[in-house]
Amino acid sequence: MNDTVLLAHGSGGLMAHELLESVFLRHLGDGELGALEDAAVLSRLEGRLAMTTDSYVVQPLFFPGGDIGKLAVCGTVNDLAMRGARPMFLSVGFILEEGLAISDLERVVASMAETARDAGVRIVAGDTKVVGRGGADRLFINTAGVGIVPEGISISAHNAQPGDSVLVSGAMGDHGLAIMTQRHGLRFESPIRSDCAALAGLVASMLAICPHIHVLRDPTRGGLAAVLNEIAGQSQVGIAIDEQVVPVHEPVAAACELLGLDPLYAANEGKLVAIAPAKSAAALVDVMQTHPLGAEASIVGEVTSAHVGSVVLRTAFGTQRVLDMPAGELLPRIC
Amino acid sequence: MNDTVLLAHGSGGLMAHELLESVFLRHLGDGELGALEDAAVLSRLEGRLAMTTDSYVVQPLFFPGGDIGKLAVCGTVNDLAMRGARPMFLSVGFILEEGLAISDLERVVASMAETARDAGVRIVAGDTKVVGRGGADRLFINTAGVGIVPEGISISAHNAQPGDSVLVSGAMGDHGLAIMTQRHGLRFESPIRSDCAALAGLVASMLAICPHIHVLRDPTRGGLAAVLNEIAGQSQVGIAIDEQVVPVHEPVAAACELLGLDPLYAANEGKLVAIAPAKSAAALVDVMQTHPLGAEASIVGEVTSAHVGSVVLRTAFGTQRVLDMPAGELLPRIC
Repeated sequence: MNDTVLLAHGSGGLMAHELLESVFLRHLGDGELGALEDAAVLSRLEGRLAMTTDSYVVQPLFFPGGDIGKLAVCGTVNDLAMRGARPMFLSVGFILEEGLAISDLERVVASMAETARDAGVRIVAGDTKVVGRGGADRLFINTAGVGIVPEGISISAHNAQPGDSVLVSGAMGDHGLAIMTQRHGLRFESPIRSDCAALAGLVASMLAICPHIHVLRDPTRGGLAAVLNEIAGQSQVGIAIDEQVVPVHEPVAAACELLGLDPLYAANEGKLVAIAPAKSAAALVDVMQTHPLGAEASIVGEVTSAHVGSVVLRTAFGTQRVLDMPAGELLPRIC
Repeated sequence: MNDTVLLAHGSGGLMAHELLESVFLRHLGDGELGALEDAAVLSRLEGRLAMTTDSYVVQPLFFPGGDIGKLAVCGTVNDLAMRGARPMFLSVGFILEEGLAISDLERVVASMAETARDAGVRIVAGDTKVVGRGGADRLFINTAGVGIVPEGISISAHNAQPGDSVLVSGAMGDHGLAIMTQRHGLRFESPIRSDCAALAGLVASMLAICPHIHVLRDPTRGGLAAVLNEIAGQSQVGIAIDEQVVPVHEPVAAACELLGLDPLYAANEGKLVAIAPAKSAAALVDVMQTHPLGAEASIVGEVTSAHVGSVVLRTAFGTQRVLDMPAGELLPRIC
């Protein structure tokens, strides 16, 4: 067996089968994927289907707290969970650059298998393409996911209402700054770890006590600022946030200072924003804080009928400023 | 608006929204995609779900008979159809290289919209990532698809039985040779056109008269030779094919001669192989020939209990040779 990926591994021929057997099926082959059919045929389903997709081009492939494979499972599971869906099945497409170390590929695939198992989803379909040296940057992954939305759940970025409370499940910016400090070779006393995690369990516990959550979004690219601006636009409401209660870990704040970044614009991969009726907010925070992924949950602001379509940040000094939609590209290839 | 893709188009910020509005939503935005949610929530479904995925890295992006967008819709629709599923929903993930002409991107997206409409599937979820110059080769697309398998249908590469007939829906090698001649700048009197097409309609008409088809496969990478070898292995049978009855278009045969290729190893993107009980074969060919995508359908061989796991080609000279699984990489980035 070669120790790097060759063009012939993408041929559909013998070498493609060897790679399939020795890497993909070894870690992912105990279910539908192992049947090697054109499509997986799954169990009977009943209910409203949810479907989503994301491609992952993060650089570097491995970083404190995760890797591209863990990210590719968590990101797609989270997009399903943000509609209140129970994530069930994932597909995965790999684009490999000729020359990629097979050991790196295997490490990523093993990470995907473990993350999927932990998140309770099954990887049921897959595909691999190989492009020549210089045709891609080592390894790109696409995942698509399907899930079922339980009866009575209606969660949408269009549903925020004036008077609702705005909650976050934890500290902002961990993923973005983990990637950036790794990329720039910055060392801190304790390295910043990505928050990369699957949020479906946290969401299930939240819906169990408050099925009428209006909005859930995970603040990935563009961070909290982008997501709140999108919600303000889609729901045609204003949003006001108190800067001093938005949790930010100390090393993240320090790295942001150093790099000239704002943690409210930095990516997260294991955090959510929830918008819910104010009367349910305290109980939601309580249940979130009992979950390992919501230990630092807090109420950070509220939805308003003023300044429709925009987000206002109330600072520690009692001033206010508009928290704009991010304009350029600060953090390329963050996910 | 810029005329090429910039890194900022992948940021999740303002420029990403501009690209979304001006290209993606313009062509794909009249359904769930236009709601811009983390996941699409679809209608209630009942039945066995089928799921599949493929990434597309074809080079060049545009070729006689199709483009990467048409290919990305047809390929995934076909993988669902090969399990007898009715294709319903697609997701699409784009990876764009900085510098890609926006006009090329838009041409591809418009082609996807048209192909999906014609195939009766809805593109319900999408994602776009941008990587820097040299980080990818212009444009890669992943599609994932879900469909519903009707009651009573059980089609699998494991189901071939000795005595079954082997059918193909038309001529072999058109897609592979369309790409190769385009790439090598070879000119023929009439250019070889890719057969790129969605096969779900053809499959539905076949299942209507013969719901007990045992195997359906589309001979893409590795061509007819790879697919028959896989079926022989997965079903633990032998397969015998008559070379002289396998349809090959004259310009494809000529180009293969010139390039030293074998049309039985060349990719197809709008053809299928069907394996069905011998008593249904003639009726199947009749119904296939009445469909525009099956006009050249024919019976090309049979499943045997001899030479289990391998494929034998009976030549025009009355000799036999083993049709091996392709070993190396003859045609990189064919799909």
